[in-house]
Amino acid sequence: MRQAMAQAEVGDDVMGEDPTVNELQKLAAEMFGMEASLFVPSGTMSNLIAVMVHCRERSDEMIVGDLSHMHIYEQGGSAQLAGVHATTVTTRPDGTFDLKQLESKIRHGYPDPHYPRTRLICVENTHNIQGGRVLPLPFLQEVRALADRYGLSVHMDGARLMNAAVALGVPPSSILQHMHTVSVCLSKGLGSPVGTMLAGPRDFISRAVRCRKAVGGGMRQAGVLAAAGKLSLLEMVGRLEDDHHNAKTFALALLDCEPSLFDVDMSAVETNILRFRIKDPALSPQEVCALMGQVGEGEEAALGQGVRVLMFPHYENSIRAVWHLGISPEDTQLAIKKMQFVAGQHLNSRT
Amino acid sequence: MRQAMAQAEVGDDVMGEDPTVNELQKLAAEMFGMEASLFVPSGTMSNLIAVMVHCRERSDEMIVGDLSHMHIYEQGGSAQLAGVHATTVTTRPDGTFDLKQLESKIRHGYPDPHYPRTRLICVENTHNIQGGRVLPLPFLQEVRALADRYGLSVHMDGARLMNAAVALGVPPSSILQHMHTVSVCLSKGLGSPVGTMLAGPRDFISRAVRCRKAVGGGMRQAGVLAAAGKLSLLEMVGRLEDDHHNAKTFALALLDCEPSLFDVDMSAVETNILRFRIKDPALSPQEVCALMGQVGEGEEAALGQGVRVLMFPHYENSIRAVWHLGISPEDTQLAIKKMQFVAGQHLNSRT
Amino acid sequence: MRQAMAQAEVGDDVMGEDPTVNELQKLAAEMFGMEASLFVPSGTMSNLIAVMVHCRERSDEMIVGDLSHMHIYEQGGSAQLAGVHATTVTTRPDGTFDLKQLESKIRHGYPDPHYPRTRLICVENTHNIQGGRVLPLPFLQEVRALADRYGLSVHMDGARLMNAAVALGVPPSSILQHMHTVSVCLSKGLGSPVGTMLAGPRDFISRAVRCRKAVGGGMRQAGVLAAAGKLSLLEMVGRLEDDHHNAKTFALALLDCEPSLFDVDMSAVETNILRFRIKDPALSPQEVCALMGQVGEGEEAALGQGVRVLMFPHYENSIRAVWHLGISPEDTQLAIKKMQFVAGQHLNSRT
Amino acid sequence: MRQAMAQAEVGDDVMGEDPTVNELQKLAAEMFGMEASLFVPSGTMSNLIAVMVHCRERSDEMIVGDLSHMHIYEQGGSAQLAGVHATTVTTRPDGTFDLKQLESKIRHGYPDPHYPRTRLICVENTHNIQGGRVLPLPFLQEVRALADRYGLSVHMDGARLMNAAVALGVPPSSILQHMHTVSVCLSKGLGSPVGTMLAGPRDFISRAVRCRKAVGGGMRQAGVLAAAGKLSLLEMVGRLEDDHHNAKTFALALLDCEPSLFDVDMSAVETNILRFRIKDPALSPQEVCALMGQVGEGEEAALGQGVRVLMFPHYENSIRAVWHLGISPEDTQLAIKKMQFVAGQHLNSRT
Repeated sequence: MRQAMAQAEVGDDVMGEDPTVNELQKLAAEMFGMEASLFVPSGTMSNLIAVMVHCRERSDEMIVGDLSHMHIYEQGGSAQLAGVHATTVTTRPDGTFDLKQLESKIRHGYPDPHYPRTRLICVENTHNIQGGRVLPLPFLQEVRALADRYGLSVHMDGARLMNAAVALGVPPSSILQHMHTVSVCLSKGLGSPVGTMLAGPRDFISRAVRCRKAVGGGMRQAGVLAAAGKLSLLEMVGRLEDDHHNAKTFALALLDCEPSLFDVDMSAVETNILRFRIKDPALSPQEVCALMGQVGEGEEAALGQGVRVLMFPHYENSIRAVWHLGISPEDTQLAIKKMQFVAGQHLNSRT
Repeated sequence: MRQAMAQAEVGDDVMGEDPTVNELQKLAAEMFGMEASLFVPSGTMSNLIAVMVHCRERSDEMIVGDLSHMHIYEQGGSAQLAGVHATTVTTRPDGTFDLKQLESKIRHGYPDPHYPRTRLICVENTHNIQGGRVLPLPFLQEVRALADRYGLSVHMDGARLMNAAVALGVPPSSILQHMHTVSVCLSKGLGSPVGTMLAGPRDFISRAVRCRKAVGGGMRQAGVLAAAGKLSLLEMVGRLEDDHHNAKTFALALLDCEPSLFDVDMSAVETNILRFRIKDPALSPQEVCALMGQVGEGEEAALGQGVRVLMFPHYENSIRAVWHLGISPEDTQLAIKKMQFVAGQHLNSRT
Repeated sequence: MRQAMAQAEVGDDVMGEDPTVNELQKLAAEMFGMEASLFVPSGTMSNLIAVMVHCRERSDEMIVGDLSHMHIYEQGGSAQLAGVHATTVTTRPDGTFDLKQLESKIRHGYPDPHYPRTRLICVENTHNIQGGRVLPLPFLQEVRALADRYGLSVHMDGARLMNAAVALGVPPSSILQHMHTVSVCLSKGLGSPVGTMLAGPRDFISRAVRCRKAVGGGMRQAGVLAAAGKLSLLEMVGRLEDDHHNAKTFALALLDCEPSLFDVDMSAVETNILRFRIKDPALSPQEVCALMGQVGEGEEAALGQGVRVLMFPHYENSIRAVWHLGISPEDTQLAIKKMQFVAGQHLNSRT
Repeated sequence: MRQAMAQAEVGDDVMGEDPTVNELQKLAAEMFGMEASLFVPSGTMSNLIAVMVHCRERSDEMIVGDLSHMHIYEQGGSAQLAGVHATTVTTRPDGTFDLKQLESKIRHGYPDPHYPRTRLICVENTHNIQGGRVLPLPFLQEVRALADRYGLSVHMDGARLMNAAVALGVPPSSILQHMHTVSVCLSKGLGSPVGTMLAGPRDFISRAVRCRKAVGGGMRQAGVLAAAGKLSLLEMVGRLEDDHHNAKTFALALLDCEPSLFDVDMSAVETNILRFRIKDPALSPQEVCALMGQVGEGEEAALGQGVRVLMFPHYENSIRAVWHLGISPEDTQLAIKKMQFVAGQHLNSRT
């Protein structure tokens, strides 16, 4: 990939003249079944631009999940920079919403001046905070039908869309047929150093180009990054299957190792993110993550302590682990061994 | 009151030189136990200014109830105009929040750039959508303690603060000792044609003056309105008790009249707003409100049909009725008679 | 006027049900030759709403005079609250612009993402900072022709539109035929305590209603103010002629009194605002205004020192004096006498 | 440079863990004599963030040149996204301002609510629209002294700062001693494909990190770009001298070739940008640029027509030509030959 970047043909993308960026944008649009797409520096910017374009009139409002990345992790940019008010629906453990609740959040009073005007529903696939959950296709179909009934748009924060497609065994366009627009990250599991694709109707992308410039996301010779992006889409999607497999392997090992200690819902391990809980209140997520991050020496190393495993305490007292490009089946086995060591130490200390 | 308005001494309030406005502002600050107060044209503006001052740095966030007036009825102005992101807590039927949930919504990650910075908690007293519910003093005390623990401010949308004070039998300052700032409407039950008081620390009000000017709420000879406002605070508070009494009378009459038809929680009838439900799914809130708004003639008029009663379908399939200055005990009896007539007609038609 | 206010029939204007407000809005629309109008609390809000409606898409830009009230005195609300970028044209001493410069400021590059999109040209009539100057009708016609050529809108900050109409001897609709929208204050010379009319096409006013609500300018029983507003439009316009006459009388007296001391351009004294300069650098505008504001006693009072005259130092080292409802021909004579006294004192001290 | 990018060590820069980015940020801060610096995707974003941090309270205003990049070419993002009102000073032909005019634009009335609050003065060095003009050090010193007097900050849009440093023969820190913050592009003449450095006090940069995240400028493995950025600062600055030399060579050739046709002010050719005018009204800038962009064949090619030279019509009927990394002395000679051909053709056609 670095090779491809080093040899990329470039031009001034602010003028639309970088051939590698243009190729990437054409490729992504085709894969996503959208009319057009745009290369932007980050997922946060991609979502921000989507909000700016969909909610482009004063008092336009959007509906987002209360545990969505857009609501929790993007610094409130939709309100702060775009002036768009948000109302939330409850994100269920599988990343979906209750459709009745969703419908109840649509503003029926417009143009009564007390109310904003609902314009946009946002979904997230796979769902980050809920542990890489894949949104079921029928759910997306129903959300779209609801949106159509009220003349709303649907945007998917598909930072990990490709994981969803691989998990479902369908092309991304099968998922995206229910969406108006989508944002898909090329970094993360797809291995690009930088970059996200925003895709949608041609008119939407024309407006997005202006918004990207305004927020400062227009980059000169972006072709060096786009070269990596092309490889991400063409050659890296298949390997996401490995991440999913490794995550499941680790999850099963947790159950095997010590079912009295680890709480894992295997049906929720659908992609490359694993969330699990520690049943013993005496062992906190913070503590487990700290122990997994320490590297032991000598005898301990022999027992599996010789590697550093990064995990993070997460929502609702859980632990979150993520698999990506850099983690092989062998690494996963080492991580399992280490987790066994940490669990063993704890169980011994308890007795 | 109109007399007082006609004789008001005025000056240019944009320059701080309207004596009647200055008197009103001094009076309100004293009654509320605040350092200073400011006269503004509406409750929506008052709340907007409060948000602008409390959340005055980029990425500041506020926490509001999901059924609060600020979240539902102010056109999303906090985001649209002030660029302030909001996160919501669930408004409980009595207008309060679960304190654990409230605490969980405070952003603990700042200055991690993924997150906004929580600055403000907003409460509403009495609570409009929940039917004029009065927030208990211990709840307010706990919210303030939580806010203090995290260095946050607490603003009360007290459009109907005086109803709460009367219902609790305490001076407004007893309620407001737990708040940093408050917005109190002079119209509604207090009878002024126009106006709301925003009160808080002196420094807060100094900043509010600038925000009021920016949104265009600086009015020249506002003294004509302030004269009415003074009367509202000095002479009209006592009469709110009558509204509360009338609302309770009507509510009891509903139960008396036809307990099989009307669903009323008497413990929730605390002030001048009544919410009730129709138990018979064959009779919709829309239908009841339409019938109550029709004026019958001849024989029907004799049966109680001769008056027009305004009620509105409300949240969650309920009906909302509000008592204020213009509705006497006699009017309330007429309304009861009319409701009996409407109920009777329906029950007859059913058989 | 206070009488009319005291007897006004009112309703809830937020619901569009205040009959007096509705009458005022119909009256103003007719007088201005516009489809519809809206009552708002202040001129600043009226202009802000106009900007919000005309420039309602992201990246819309407006062109304003560099000495206009909107650019100088409204706290930058167009950018601060409405997110609208402004570019300026040079305000000439008579309040007009150079049309070539105006045309050069229109963005010709759109949709090139480097540029905002020009949407609106704002003019001010009469022009406040430039001393109540009346914009010539041919100038307005040419501005409109230019706007039409580029598909732009033209808004007039006509806070003192009626002074312009009186000075030109034409109905306001003759001026406003060249405008898309206008904002006209009912306070100031027209005597209302509070209020401004925003007028324009029906669709513009529908949008303005929503913006007014968002900024908090929706007032409940605004009829008490609208009653005064109706009198302002129906009965107070004629008397503006007196203000203009008094201003001219005072200006002439300055020249008479001491041509070596006062610099007055009589051709610029068109309405109720007078700007003049002091030729003697030893006497500052600040000093003159201070002396005019002091009240002398005893012998001095006999010499004309017995009244307090309010004037303010203004742009470019000038002094500004304004005539309005409260200042009679007799008051004007007293002010002249006082100015003669102040001038005399200074000249004596010089020798 | 591509080699360095291909071998760059990377990490997650959103977490501050990309070592190459950290090295670049340290290097830039040292070169600029600033406490800290931040890597951002574009010059537009860098300037936007600077405005967001300097003008971080509601109603803060900035002063910019009326022909500055920030005012003309950044889509009005300062108002659109940051809500910051701007007032302009006249950009003089050499890129400086009149200091008296600058001082007059500072708001002296704060906290009077009519006014925004001046917080920031922006300068541009070298000045783009004015043809790469270098701001004199004494001018910068005076601007800073004025800013200090009023407690304002000074930001330099130094997209081409290094050109200014090379032209003056001083280190960049000598220029930046007069600035609080600066934005410097690594692309353009310095050869990086993407990237701009924003530098200033440590506290400023801490806030800038949050703003960068909000607008979506946080990039994951930005190290691949930062590797190029390091080379730009360490090895590419010297070569700017060549661009300046080539620009001067071309400018002199214009005069030599046909002084009756070309209007060039040699004293204004200070860096790598050349602006010149065509004296003959029969030959428009558009036409000249079109002819220079056409590639002739056969005999014409032999006469110098065989290359494509990109120039653009510019402000005030001028033509703009820019020299950068890709244009050698030989290319410059070819461009001269082509210009001679185009001029010859035109002169012949005239006779």
